[in-house]
Amino acid sequence: MSKGTVVLAYSGGLDTSCILVWLKEQGYDVITFLANVGQDEDFKAAKDKAETLGAKKVFIEDVRAEFVEDFIWPALQANAIYEDRYLLGTAIARPCIARKLVEIARREGAQFISHGATGKGNDQIRFELSCYALYPEVKVIAPWRIPEFYNRFKGRKDLMEYAQKHGIPVPVSPKAPWSMDANLMHISGRRLSGAFAALGSDWSDPSPSQHAPADLYMMTKNPEDSPNSADVLEIEFKNGVPIKVVDVKQGTSKSSPLDIFSYLNLIGGNHGVGRIDIVENRFIGMKSRGIYETPGGTILLKAHLDIETFTMDKEVRRIKQGLGIKFSELVYNGFWYSPECEFVRHCINKSQENVEGKVQLSIFKGQVYILGRESPKSLYNEELVSMDVQGDYDPCDASGFIRINAVRLRHRAKLSS
Amino acid sequence: MSKGTVVLAYSGGLDTSCILVWLKEQGYDVITFLANVGQDEDFKAAKDKAETLGAKKVFIEDVRAEFVEDFIWPALQANAIYEDRYLLGTAIARPCIARKLVEIARREGAQFISHGATGKGNDQIRFELSCYALYPEVKVIAPWRIPEFYNRFKGRKDLMEYAQKHGIPVPVSPKAPWSMDANLMHISGRRLSGAFAALGSDWSDPSPSQHAPADLYMMTKNPEDSPNSADVLEIEFKNGVPIKVVDVKQGTSKSSPLDIFSYLNLIGGNHGVGRIDIVENRFIGMKSRGIYETPGGTILLKAHLDIETFTMDKEVRRIKQGLGIKFSELVYNGFWYSPECEFVRHCINKSQENVEGKVQLSIFKGQVYILGRESPKSLYNEELVSMDVQGDYDPCDASGFIRINAVRLRHRAKLSS
Amino acid sequence: MSKGTVVLAYSGGLDTSCILVWLKEQGYDVITFLANVGQDEDFKAAKDKAETLGAKKVFIEDVRAEFVEDFIWPALQANAIYEDRYLLGTAIARPCIARKLVEIARREGAQFISHGATGKGNDQIRFELSCYALYPEVKVIAPWRIPEFYNRFKGRKDLMEYAQKHGIPVPVSPKAPWSMDANLMHISGRRLSGAFAALGSDWSDPSPSQHAPADLYMMTKNPEDSPNSADVLEIEFKNGVPIKVVDVKQGTSKSSPLDIFSYLNLIGGNHGVGRIDIVENRFIGMKSRGIYETPGGTILLKAHLDIETFTMDKEVRRIKQGLGIKFSELVYNGFWYSPECEFVRHCINKSQENVEGKVQLSIFKGQVYILGRESPKSLYNEELVSMDVQGDYDPCDASGFIRINAVRLRHRAKLSS
Amino acid sequence: MSKGTVVLAYSGGLDTSCILVWLKEQGYDVITFLANVGQDEDFKAAKDKAETLGAKKVFIEDVRAEFVEDFIWPALQANAIYEDRYLLGTAIARPCIARKLVEIARREGAQFISHGATGKGNDQIRFELSCYALYPEVKVIAPWRIPEFYNRFKGRKDLMEYAQKHGIPVPVSPKAPWSMDANLMHISGRRLSGAFAALGSDWSDPSPSQHAPADLYMMTKNPEDSPNSADVLEIEFKNGVPIKVVDVKQGTSKSSPLDIFSYLNLIGGNHGVGRIDIVENRFIGMKSRGIYETPGGTILLKAHLDIETFTMDKEVRRIKQGLGIKFSELVYNGFWYSPECEFVRHCINKSQENVEGKVQLSIFKGQVYILGRESPKSLYNEELVSMDVQGDYDPCDASGFIRINAVRLRHRAKLSS
Repeated sequence: MSKGTVVLAYSGGLDTSCILVWLKEQGYDVITFLANVGQDEDFKAAKDKAETLGAKKVFIEDVRAEFVEDFIWPALQANAIYEDRYLLGTAIARPCIARKLVEIARREGAQFISHGATGKGNDQIRFELSCYALYPEVKVIAPWRIPEFYNRFKGRKDLMEYAQKHGIPVPVSPKAPWSMDANLMHISGRRLSGAFAALGSDWSDPSPSQHAPADLYMMTKNPEDSPNSADVLEIEFKNGVPIKVVDVKQGTSKSSPLDIFSYLNLIGGNHGVGRIDIVENRFIGMKSRGIYETPGGTILLKAHLDIETFTMDKEVRRIKQGLGIKFSELVYNGFWYSPECEFVRHCINKSQENVEGKVQLSIFKGQVYILGRESPKSLYNEELVSMDVQGDYDPCDASGFIRINAVRLRHRAKLSS
Repeated sequence: MSKGTVVLAYSGGLDTSCILVWLKEQGYDVITFLANVGQDEDFKAAKDKAETLGAKKVFIEDVRAEFVEDFIWPALQANAIYEDRYLLGTAIARPCIARKLVEIARREGAQFISHGATGKGNDQIRFELSCYALYPEVKVIAPWRIPEFYNRFKGRKDLMEYAQKHGIPVPVSPKAPWSMDANLMHISGRRLSGAFAALGSDWSDPSPSQHAPADLYMMTKNPEDSPNSADVLEIEFKNGVPIKVVDVKQGTSKSSPLDIFSYLNLIGGNHGVGRIDIVENRFIGMKSRGIYETPGGTILLKAHLDIETFTMDKEVRRIKQGLGIKFSELVYNGFWYSPECEFVRHCINKSQENVEGKVQLSIFKGQVYILGRESPKSLYNEELVSMDVQGDYDPCDASGFIRINAVRLRHRAKLSS
Repeated sequence: MSKGTVVLAYSGGLDTSCILVWLKEQGYDVITFLANVGQDEDFKAAKDKAETLGAKKVFIEDVRAEFVEDFIWPALQANAIYEDRYLLGTAIARPCIARKLVEIARREGAQFISHGATGKGNDQIRFELSCYALYPEVKVIAPWRIPEFYNRFKGRKDLMEYAQKHGIPVPVSPKAPWSMDANLMHISGRRLSGAFAALGSDWSDPSPSQHAPADLYMMTKNPEDSPNSADVLEIEFKNGVPIKVVDVKQGTSKSSPLDIFSYLNLIGGNHGVGRIDIVENRFIGMKSRGIYETPGGTILLKAHLDIETFTMDKEVRRIKQGLGIKFSELVYNGFWYSPECEFVRHCINKSQENVEGKVQLSIFKGQVYILGRESPKSLYNEELVSMDVQGDYDPCDASGFIRINAVRLRHRAKLSS
Repeated sequence: MSKGTVVLAYSGGLDTSCILVWLKEQGYDVITFLANVGQDEDFKAAKDKAETLGAKKVFIEDVRAEFVEDFIWPALQANAIYEDRYLLGTAIARPCIARKLVEIARREGAQFISHGATGKGNDQIRFELSCYALYPEVKVIAPWRIPEFYNRFKGRKDLMEYAQKHGIPVPVSPKAPWSMDANLMHISGRRLSGAFAALGSDWSDPSPSQHAPADLYMMTKNPEDSPNSADVLEIEFKNGVPIKVVDVKQGTSKSSPLDIFSYLNLIGGNHGVGRIDIVENRFIGMKSRGIYETPGGTILLKAHLDIETFTMDKEVRRIKQGLGIKFSELVYNGFWYSPECEFVRHCINKSQENVEGKVQLSIFKGQVYILGRESPKSLYNEELVSMDVQGDYDPCDASGFIRINAVRLRHRAKLSS
């Protein structure tokens, strides 16, 4: 008799294929779900594979458009960036996938959800917190945290043997010595070390002696090989999100969210935009090295920062900046679906009401240069700021302003002298 | 009879030369002070000019080393950045200059201090708050806020006429239509509009139609013209500040603060690093466009962020990040010498105790790429983070961690269903 | 010929009566506006007085209901408290008065606004920032900052002489040696020193030798003289504001905002609730002593804190707490009508959606004791928190939770040993 | 053969006595440690009991003085308060006890530590995080999270039977239906429900129908029964901590930390100071009701807030306030011994350098009224704040100050009209 039905977040790779079979072995009915979040994948082949391996049902869904609109756009409004550098490309995809996973589990009456995330990473947390928030009764099966699973599969070799034994197709070429997470927003690479790794450079060692390998990057060209002339784009925003991108030299434009983002990836990727090599702090308290490439997201962040400062009151900006930092931590840690993250998203969205206008920028050799901006909601006042037009401004006022700001500074200085 | 002695922050240019003469006309004894903060200036000529124009004493002091150690270094420890983009190159130079100005005023028994900053900008505030904090009894003469001065000099033409009449040397070539502020850390350009401006593009208009002119940049090459191969540097930090920079390809190194910073400017400038075009919020509540170039500072910020995250506990980092944002606002607004800024600097400095180690990076076409890092104080734990070594880590713990984090999420979801 | 029309914020007292006449002397047409914000005042007498003194028009408006709903309620939602102690009773009344002042000025075509606030206080700022934000073209006449006014009226004696000369009724009894600001929410007392003060204790001296005089308090009984048995109230909230108060012993209830607040003042006042003696930091950088009594507001703050924590997610609470502190600073400093304060109010209001339910409390001898609370939106889970019902909670999870939280603590400890 | 040595945090009560025996049953050598943190306990009897039950060694240590100096004082400097109401009396005692526990464990070569905290509370976390941070290799035995323990002891009855069977003295009178945590700083009461509870009111139900029982309070008198005349104290601070307390009426004084704190407890307790009934958010995401009494701590918090604002720059205060909130969260959650809490404590301590002087206050019927304060480090400037002495202050400056603060408000208002 079946122990029940489990919906498995399936990637098509070796790990989740083995998990699929293992779950069946444990007595579960397995439904697989593979989300198309923009990764480069042969979805048809993955479907066939899952069916061959005994999945009771196989779901593959294209969630790219909702990924852009419901996840990337709010992150953009927040200028979301973790620890000053990471644009959260993986972190915002997890709740998007989990939402669909839960939808399927509820619809199919599955009591269980499973995934192939490891026991030391952030993704297990992001997946599961999202699932618990959206489906509080669900039970999670995380094989990489179950001793009988992880003690059985201590290395890649064990997985390979198990695969061969159970008719799971095994990759012919030796697997690259890193794990990738790829979606429309970014690709992240993490080195697999030890038994899971093929030979090669060991950049889980974060030291200068271990540079990220050149062939790790798949969305972006090496800036050394990128075009020798810049592309110029004009991005139009409304409510803090892009509604149009114009390629000034080509004269072409895009205007649906997915098209806009894909085009920015294309241009950004071609010019080598958005590569970083960082050591970051995982939620569970470890530091890990990550190599990321986020071409379109990087362009948008720079453009959004520009139009936002142009149209937003400075004190609102300051408060909103704090909320954006909070948002980034929450999303990184897996709390997209939480009362606090919903609250923060609401507040940030409110702050974006007047964030509209056009930003022009050039893209060249990995860099994004802002060239100018204009907006019907601009708070820039050319007359006011002009050095030779007084406008409605009396320079004498500044004396009083400074003197009053100095009251406590002067009093203290007198006391201490 | 003299109204008293005033120490004038003198630049050698037309404005402060006219102010010097005007102050004398008003009945003051004028002492000029010109700080060498690394700007490109003929100090000898400036000295002669001031003496010729009747300065009672002329002081020129090289404060570059203290500018680096006492001002740039603390800003670096703070990852100081205003409104996510501006590295505060002008803002941190003002208190450095003011400190010396006050020192001279006290030593010379001057009751007054004067400067040529305009009545709409930030620099008047930065200068004066610093002066009031360090010399609370001082009186400030800010001609651009005195009606009889600014009504007399309504444009460049008035200044020129006044200069000719009083034997003030007038620049032969028409002045560039922008004002510059240059120091070791950065050059900022602001467009002079209207009567003060020569003809030309009007980029006080911040719109895409008015790009920053190519010849505005003086510290950095256009990335399009920069070298086609990267330079690789290794920067060594201790207490959060660089103590050595090694040019890996050249095999050369620098180790005094001033040498380190100057070398980073050289390399960064050669590769076009650190150019930005932004609209920022002045303290007085206007938005203004600024074009900045900060080559060395940009390299250091990236390197510091890297080594800091590598060696600092993540929760300390989070608190310190908030303090750094506060620090940046304070410095931008002119409160370097204030109880709160001193307090924040103390706290930030404390946080840097273990921020040491080496960061390797490459510099190419305006970009700084981190290649790796190592540190005796690293909190990175390769074994812990490894995917196939459990180390002192039980994956099962993560289940409990996630479940407990989900307690309130699940409870709320159940209530609302 | 008239210089124009000025709307004067008129109190009926000596100062603003003199200002009224002085403004006329200066050539202005003067309209007076006296807001009824709940202070104890003979409005009819004030009206007659203003007319007698030559006011062109005299407006008296009862803004008590809007003061409660539009100003006290949002402050309550924010748990607004300045520097941990002051409930902002004066600060939130100013924008309420200013709003009406501007409304009249616009309607009457007045280009000027005037008030009697001193040049060292917060109220001048609160009034004027509100006016500028709501009527940006307005011109402010602040006599206590105009040398020809304040040099003429150097003390109370000068005002008295001027009053007698111009037929301004002069108070018979010597004025109390303090200035009061009274409204529905609170009464604040500040000592008048020197020439303005009658003889008596000098508690502008904040030292222990100068206690606040007993007769300073007018809204609250001395707790030593208050009833010897407690009153018990039940306050019902919705959207974070009270919608009903029930006097449990009396069996009576109130349900309009103004009635609720007035009743809480009555009960709180009778029991001596809400007296504080503090030194606070003014916006302009001085410290000043304030003696405040806020009976109803103090009861509501305690009740709101209770019901809020009962119904709000803890992480939302944390973020909202920060916004409330920001709100308090903004309001204290006079920025009620500013983009940032509007933004913060919006966010705080959003956070209150589920803040509903009943709080029972007793009031006795200056203290407010919470007795219990209940809510349809409670997030309290009796089963979950119970010590002997596991509920949907596995104690083992806590082990993992703790172990994972300890990962970085243990790693660091090992490194440093 | 022994499984090893465990140091048990022993209370002398039924639970930890059973745990002692149970640990022995499991094959451990048990050392008990009972900390005297000021609770009302017969330490001699507890010692005898532990020895009788087979403890290999029994340690009882008086840590009251270090509890005050190393834990209460830093919390006071921080104005530590959790969720605006709870003074953290239990939370700061845990690391104090844990520190000693670890000291003993290390000295005795024990590999294990055990405690009787439940699996749903905060104390398990506070104990264990402290232990892990101070002794990273330690193993924790938390019986209430071990299924074979908690399934065996499902209620008080099971514990009683076990006790009788193993010669553990059983309390004669039925236990009060609540659990208490008592120390020098406070007593907290929590209702035991269900099987663990005796009959009686069920105030784990937080509703108005279940008031806290009168006999729950043990440190404080009911204000209705407290003296009818106030006591007046003068507390002297240095570096933000009290160095002397004078009873003004009695003429007596105390000056060691422990004496000061004990005396404040005595006076505060006699007047019914510091009782609260709250619902708070536990770290693990549940809300729980707590009844606390913190007499001395409440007096000190009020006094410290007063002297701090009197002597600290307002902008430093603002930053420090944020750090204090952070500190409170960290301590509540168990992170006293963490890099971030150490960092925050350092910063807060730095902020207290000038927090010195005397605060006079009266204590009456549960209330603490500040009467006045004085300090050699006062930043209060009587002349500056005076209404009729200009001092070194030009009222005209305020006009400029206000006008500049209004620049962005007016510009925005004009745009939107």
